[in-house]
Amino acid sequence: MLRHELISAIRQKRSFLCVGLDTELSKLPDHLPRSPEGALAFNQAIITATRDLCVAYKPNLAFYEAMGPAGWTVFEETVRFIGREHLIIADAKRGDIGNTSRMYADAFFNRYGCDAVTVAPYMGEDSVQPFLEFPGKWTILLALTSNRGSADFQQSAQEGSHEHLYEKVLRRSQEWGRPDNLMFVVGATHPTAFDQVRRLAPDHFLLVPGVGAQGGDLQAICRYGLNADVGLLINASRSILYASRDADFAAAARLEAGKLQAEMAAILDEKGF
Amino acid sequence: MLRHELISAIRQKRSFLCVGLDTELSKLPDHLPRSPEGALAFNQAIITATRDLCVAYKPNLAFYEAMGPAGWTVFEETVRFIGREHLIIADAKRGDIGNTSRMYADAFFNRYGCDAVTVAPYMGEDSVQPFLEFPGKWTILLALTSNRGSADFQQSAQEGSHEHLYEKVLRRSQEWGRPDNLMFVVGATHPTAFDQVRRLAPDHFLLVPGVGAQGGDLQAICRYGLNADVGLLINASRSILYASRDADFAAAARLEAGKLQAEMAAILDEKGF
Repeated sequence: MLRHELISAIRQKRSFLCVGLDTELSKLPDHLPRSPEGALAFNQAIITATRDLCVAYKPNLAFYEAMGPAGWTVFEETVRFIGREHLIIADAKRGDIGNTSRMYADAFFNRYGCDAVTVAPYMGEDSVQPFLEFPGKWTILLALTSNRGSADFQQSAQEGSHEHLYEKVLRRSQEWGRPDNLMFVVGATHPTAFDQVRRLAPDHFLLVPGVGAQGGDLQAICRYGLNADVGLLINASRSILYASRDADFAAAARLEAGKLQAEMAAILDEKGF
Repeated sequence: MLRHELISAIRQKRSFLCVGLDTELSKLPDHLPRSPEGALAFNQAIITATRDLCVAYKPNLAFYEAMGPAGWTVFEETVRFIGREHLIIADAKRGDIGNTSRMYADAFFNRYGCDAVTVAPYMGEDSVQPFLEFPGKWTILLALTSNRGSADFQQSAQEGSHEHLYEKVLRRSQEWGRPDNLMFVVGATHPTAFDQVRRLAPDHFLLVPGVGAQGGDLQAICRYGLNADVGLLINASRSILYASRDADFAAAARLEAGKLQAEMAAILDEKGF
């Protein structure tokens, strides 16, 4: 899915919601089997219930990997079930030396048909570049993550420039990728950082986890995070997936996703998008 | 495999070699099928040919992931074939928010039975801690990697302390883990850095990639890298796996592994281990 297609989907659906598919066997509704088959049935029901309310889905690979080899078939079938009308983000946080990053990129982009992969920047340019070389695909680089540990290294000031490591990542990586193939992860738990992020990366889309279970505030993020093309994908996972453990889980998920979509529609209306 | 067992294996085999299983279908010997079955047969032959010459195996997950769901069965069967006499390192470079890191750790340690996982430090303490919580297992944290991109962020000086980011990673992470459950990745392409690494982490084992195809020098690394318990695992992948593309590939792999082992035995003898 290309940038203009993503922007057009946001305008049409009045939503910049990404539904995170952190599908955990132990959290499946009680009537579903705790097996790869149960996980796939769960994903399909969640996708059917939320398809018109979101523009992106983000399977979190840890949860599929934990199911063993069969988990990768669940992932593959989930991607196929989503189809071509949503941005599909493999939340994998990969990154390795060049020849290895190329294998990861090939797996997610070509074999599984995802549109985007999340990538960790620690290993630098030649670990990120192979992901950027796939035409029509997206690299989503970790910048400032939503967790407490983001204070340990990402928010360390660099000698000379005084910039934080995450700011250096934002700045340097724009020498490698463009706003049509590179996004950044910026956690919703740092609402005051969005002002500075937008100074450094005015045009890029930001993938924003941390709304919902992690407590981030949508209004606060939008205040500084929105740009002329919206430029935000707000992810919610657990608050949608596990809104109910009963047979009505898909309807409950739709209700939660709908609340976020309605809030987003109001913001888009107000900003005149 | 516990620390004292690893040290004892090193003494007995006169080797601190780790064989990296970067098994790529397009590089398999010409007589093997370019399929998951071919990859498993290749791994089994390589392992049989090198078992007595090395103390660790390191499957690189990118290469298994690229084969699709069946690649994970190849990984699973490879780990089983290696058995319990070697340290098995899942080279996966994982790391995410706490609940997600826990899923990755559970997959590699419990489901697949690996001894160690490589982890990227960018997301900080709570992304690393879940890996450290598995008793008898190892977290191998990226510090200074072997690739050119290690200059981009890892070697940035931090304000105030003047320390490089990789030095901060070495220092901070020792508040989270101990020498019996935490190792560090330090690339062989930075031989002069080993002196400083040993000042910061005198007791930890270091996993050292970059010997062989990437050009690192074993003698130079050992000069500063060895500690009282040896403290080094030197990895070679491509130079061993792809020493020959003919039917004699396993014998050729044994010859290459044997050269490294002989060099290591001489170093251990000289140091009186």
